[in-house]
This record gives sequence, C-alpha cells and structure tokens, in this order.
Amino acid sequence: MADVMPSTRQFTITPIDGGITSPTGFRSAAVHSGIKAKPGALDLAVLAVDTFASMAALFTTNLAQAAPVLVSKRHLEVTHGVGCAIVVNSGCANACTGDNGLANAVTMASEVAADLGCEPEQVLVASTGVIGVGLKMDRLVPGIHAACTSLAHGNAGEAARAIMTTDPFPKEHAVRVDTAQGSFSVGGMAKGSGMIEPNMATMLGFLTTDAQATPAMLHRALVASARDTFNAITVDGECSTNDSLFAMASGTSGVVITEELYPALLEGLLAVSRNLALGIVRGGEGATRMIAVTVRNARTTDDARQVARTIANSPLVKTAVHGADPNWGRIVAAAGRAGVRFDIGRATVHIGGILLFENGLPHDDAAPRAAEILTRDAVDIEVSLGAGDAAATIWGCDLSAEYVRINGEYRT
Amino acid sequence: MADVMPSTRQFTITPIDGGITSPTGFRSAAVHSGIKAKPGALDLAVLAVDTFASMAALFTTNLAQAAPVLVSKRHLEVTHGVGCAIVVNSGCANACTGDNGLANAVTMASEVAADLGCEPEQVLVASTGVIGVGLKMDRLVPGIHAACTSLAHGNAGEAARAIMTTDPFPKEHAVRVDTAQGSFSVGGMAKGSGMIEPNMATMLGFLTTDAQATPAMLHRALVASARDTFNAITVDGECSTNDSLFAMASGTSGVVITEELYPALLEGLLAVSRNLALGIVRGGEGATRMIAVTVRNARTTDDARQVARTIANSPLVKTAVHGADPNWGRIVAAAGRAGVRFDIGRATVHIGGILLFENGLPHDDAAPRAAEILTRDAVDIEVSLGAGDAAATIWGCDLSAEYVRINGEYRT
Repeated sequence: MADVMPSTRQFTITPIDGGITSPTGFRSAAVHSGIKAKPGALDLAVLAVDTFASMAALFTTNLAQAAPVLVSKRHLEVTHGVGCAIVVNSGCANACTGDNGLANAVTMASEVAADLGCEPEQVLVASTGVIGVGLKMDRLVPGIHAACTSLAHGNAGEAARAIMTTDPFPKEHAVRVDTAQGSFSVGGMAKGSGMIEPNMATMLGFLTTDAQATPAMLHRALVASARDTFNAITVDGECSTNDSLFAMASGTSGVVITEELYPALLEGLLAVSRNLALGIVRGGEGATRMIAVTVRNARTTDDARQVARTIANSPLVKTAVHGADPNWGRIVAAAGRAGVRFDIGRATVHIGGILLFENGLPHDDAAPRAAEILTRDAVDIEVSLGAGDAAATIWGCDLSAEYVRINGEYRT
Repeated sequence: MADVMPSTRQFTITPIDGGITSPTGFRSAAVHSGIKAKPGALDLAVLAVDTFASMAALFTTNLAQAAPVLVSKRHLEVTHGVGCAIVVNSGCANACTGDNGLANAVTMASEVAADLGCEPEQVLVASTGVIGVGLKMDRLVPGIHAACTSLAHGNAGEAARAIMTTDPFPKEHAVRVDTAQGSFSVGGMAKGSGMIEPNMATMLGFLTTDAQATPAMLHRALVASARDTFNAITVDGECSTNDSLFAMASGTSGVVITEELYPALLEGLLAVSRNLALGIVRGGEGATRMIAVTVRNARTTDDARQVARTIANSPLVKTAVHGADPNWGRIVAAAGRAGVRFDIGRATVHIGGILLFENGLPHDDAAPRAAEILTRDAVDIEVSLGAGDAAATIWGCDLSAEYVRINGEYRT
C-alpha cells in the first residue's frame, strides 16, 4: 500500500459480487469426490482459464513442504508461469507422504491436463487437510473428471466451500478496477486454519484477474500485496506444510498492465487479499475478536512489523483481549522483548484510541473506557515507538479456551 | 553441562535440606509488610551475608526494565560485584513507575544498608508483582527494618514463600559439593510466573554458596549454569520486565574456587538451578504436564536450542500434549518453521521413546502407545535432525484452558 499514493491514483476500485470467476476468462467447478467422509461435502475444486493465463504463487517457508507444494513449484519453474488450471482438494493435506504422495500430486495435475487438453506442468496443485495420510486416488480421479466436465463461469461460491476444512464460513471477494485504459476485475477465495480436526493448519488463497500481465509482473504484484495482507495476519504464529497463495491472470479484459498501470493491479489484488485475509482472522479457531496491532514511529518497516507481530502473537496479550482487559503492561512487555531497539520512555500505547501509557508511566484513569472498547468484535492496539516514521499493521485474534478445546481434543 | 565430563569429576554432589541459608555465612528473614493485601501474607525478604560476598546477576533482556533491575545493575557495576545483601518484595513489580520508582528502589537498598552497616550500593534489589503501580514505602520501610532485625540462619523457607506471587508452591533446593580440597554448599530459591493476578510474569532466582569465588568466576559459572536451566525453560514464551537471577558467594567454607575446582562450582549451581527451574515449569500457570523437548543431531547447539524452543512454545504442540495427542505432524511443522536448515527426510520424531516419524513418513501404528505415555505428568519429545551431533533440551509445559482463564479473567 505504501507505494501507491492516493493523490496519483488514476483508477477506482469497486467491490462486485462473486469470487474467483468474477474476472472473465475463468471457470470453476466443485464436487464431492469422497475424500471427506461426510456425504455430499464438497472436497475438490478445479479452477481453469479459458485459454492460458500468467500464473504466480507463493508457498510456505516451512522446511516440511507437502507434495502439492513441491509439485506446484516445479510446474511453475518448468512453464515459466504460463498455465491453464489449478486443482485443489480438502480433507487430506498430502503432506509427509513420501514418494507416493509426490506421484499422487503429479497424477492430480495430469488428470486435469488430460481433460482440459494442456500439459500436466501447466496445472498447479493444492491440498489441505490431515497430514501423514495418503490421498484416496480411486475417489479423487473420478472426482477430477466430474469437476472438469462441469466447469462454469458462475459457480465460484461452490469452489470457495470445497476448499474449506473447518473454516466457519467461506471466504470470497471480488472488485472491479476502472482505469483510463479500461476496466478489469480481480477475484479471489481463501481458506484459513480451522484446525478443529487433527493436523490441519493450512492457509490457501487463490486470486484471479482478467488483466493482462506477464508472469513476472503478476509475481511482483502478488509478493507486494501478500506482504500487507496474507503475510500480515496471525492466528497462532504457526506456519503450515501446505500454505500456498496462487494468482492467475487471463488477460481477457484486454487491459495490459504496464508500469503505469501496475499500481492499479496491485491495489486490486490488495483489496481482494485484504478482505480474504481478514476473513481468515475472523474465522481463526476459537477467535471471538479481531485485533489490529499497528506499530508507528519505528525506525524501519521491518522493525514495526516485528514489534507488531510479537504483540499479536503474545499469549498474554491475546488472553487479555479475550478478557476485555486493557492490559498495557503486557503490550509494553511484548514490545520490549521483540528484539527491536527503542526507548520505552518515548513509547506510547493506545487501545481503541485511548492513551494508556506514555513517558514510561500508565494512564490508569483511562483503563475503564478502554475496557469498554475491548468488548467489541474488532479491537485496535496502537504502539508508537518514538524512533522514526515507519509503520506496519498485523492482524490477529484473541486466545480463548475454545482454541485449547479445539486443538486439545483429539482422535488418534 | 557440556564442559564437565563425568569421567574427569573430582567431586560428588549430594542434595541436602534447606535453601538459600544452607550454605554457611548467610542469614535471611521474611515479613508481611503490607504490600500484599492479604493479612499476614509474607511479601518481603532480606538475604544477607555475614561479612561480604562476591555477587553476580543476570537480568531480563526486555527493553522495559523495572526500577529494581536498573538499580541492581548499577550497584553491581559500582561495587564490582562485592556486596552484603539482597532485598526483595512481592506484590508490586515497581515497573513502569518512572523516576519515583527508581528513587523507591534506591531507598529499599539504603534502608537495608543502614540496618546492616554497609554501603547502599552493596545491596541489590528485586521486586515482583503488578506493573505500573508504585510501592507503598510507608509500609515497605518498616517492613525492611523488621526483617533486618530478625535475620537468621534457619528460616530460608519463609523467604522462599515471601517471594511468591501466585506460584502454586515455593521452590527451594540445596546441595553439598564434596571435593578433594574440601566441601562447600550451594542453595537457592526461585519464583515462577503464576500470572493469576494481572501483569505478573516474573521469574526471580537467588543462589547462594559458601565457596570462595571471585565475582568474575561467580558470574562465569552463573551464565553457564543459567544457559541450560533457567534460560532453557518456557511457560508461554514471554519475558518479563523484572526477570532476575542473583548469585552470592560468602567464601565461609574456605574452599577456594580455582580453575581446577570451577567444574565443581558449576555443577553445584547447575544441580540447584535445574531443580528450581523445573519447579517453575511444573508450577506454570494452568500447566498439567511438563514437556522436555530434546533436539539431537543438530549442526550446532544454537540450532538445537532454536528448534527445541520453537517446538516447546508452539501452541499447537502444547495443546496436543494437553489432549494427550501424539501429534507428530505438529512437531514436524514447528521444527520446519524454526528457521534452522535441515532435511525433513533425515529427521525423526520420538514421543516418550516411541518412534512416530522417520524417512519423511509416519509410524501411525505406534500412535496409541505414544498417546498412553502422553497421559503422564512429564513427557519427553525427542527430535533428531540428522544434520550433525549437537543437542539441547528445553523444558516447557502444556497449554490448558486454565491458562486462558487465569490470564483472561481480570480486574480493571
């Protein structure tokens, strides 16, 4: 967001209905293949482009990368980011599944490619669900064929539901970007980490646009937009084996993304990504309130991000917010251990706009008003470090007994 | 421990009764000064040496350091580590209290010094309790005088109780070290982070010995022993404004700690520190089980520590252990995001000695036996990285709904 100044904007962004198929040139389908045990539960989606699309993706930085992540990375390399589809299943992460898992991920891509008439490497793959369990290919392959024969422009909502594991609600969003050179759209869907079932901790995001962008341009915009959206949220500080964020550009709007129009593409991706990312936080396991932690007046943006992330991940801050407790002391202590140098005497802490800490001393008289604000669904925590003029925001959620119940009660 | 090989040991270590006054040359006293509201609750302790002691201390790395931490640091500098007493109160952390707080911490030291006939700078200060609230000096100063007039050799147990905030039990320990050059003792007491009351998150540790060691030698042994004990435990990854670990050597045993005897001093400190540190973990808020995470076959000890710490702090691993779930997938995922390079395919995961993950694949048939082991009070998690031969252990505890209740239910 920092590289787009409102005053130089030559474009407007308007929310529109739908999700991944709102931009032209894309079709999707979702089916129940039988990976999920529940009868009729959607568990497989295919997202296809009518011709070919520029593709870009970001993957988990975890060393333990699932088979679909490894296969998608290789496919993107081989094709230099030109592809025709993404296939995704829920209910099984195909992670820690060895060579057999890799072969299954490749099969998912080749089955889609056979149906769509493209190369297997032009298909990317994503999976989410239980770790350490193999895919039931005898169910998945017929499901893939059923999905590929029912691709349509209008059923993005089903795809958004098919990628859910234990998310409390589907997450999709779309916007229209109007520029002097014409209009294009950006759509998307995402799933968060419900983790009610064992071993599930995956964030998957899918973005589409009918703008015409090179794979390199699309990748650049994806990296920049993810930084302040998908990479600026935290539910419990965990990072999964399967986290993936995909972007596809069909080009069918005819609007060519030049350097001049790059900010319009970036803002379009940001608008959709922000909506989806905040949806993941709101749907975080056991979450009852969203917390936006903004750190201002840091020496660098990295410093600001680091302090904001430490506060947003602090179990003591998260439980305090859960209990509607304006506990500035825990916020100061978390900031102080974030590994960033600043002078506590110059720092301030606001909760919901109420000043609670300044000049090294508390404003305890303001605590009751802050406690009132903390009972709301969304809470702002603002820390100024008094060290510079950089800022960053991290979105998180509170820590509830429900989180412990969800992740502590279990199968085996 | 790595620098002391059992085969070269010229000494034996035997647990003995008592705590900080088990080594000769020390006296202590504890009183109810009125900082804690509960009538009669001990809230002030003085630990004094009969003549003078070598002193060393380690303090919180948090940028937000409480007044007693700042004052103790300065006093240690001024005296080059020769002192006569430590005064500590519970119920009020004297943190985020500005210049007034600094003046109060200095007063605590000078009142003790006046009573004992030494310089104010020869007294160190510690506080634990609520952040952002000033000390009630009209209660504390009479309490200090009462304590200084009742110093005795035999009442270490009362001091161990006086430093508690919401710890479920007092923590003290002592050992005798027998060497060819004579015998000396090491004693200690500590408090953990109960945090049932607001803003409390402090670890305080006090170690005494009647060995004769220079301040520099004592500091070196304190740093080395803390690394594998007090600095190898985690309850919730938080680091407080007041964390302090003190050591005093009276020298009254007549055993002079030379380079040759340094390992005996180190092992004595380690034995007492390990006992106290594990007591803090067992008394962690809401903890129902202790978790020892050992990472082996890492390239470096730092790598091993980093991976072990990430696993021990992972909310998903902690909730899994709470639910007696042998969830190796969460352990692998936490190791994978620890920022240390290793090959997942060469890693193994054991829970309670049961192999659950090897060659990138699970051993799910062993899960029921591991689940059985996870119902015990103390649980071993062992991860081998297959990258070298360094190892480290971090001790933590499970995450329970009780932790959320304790830290979410609140005053204001």
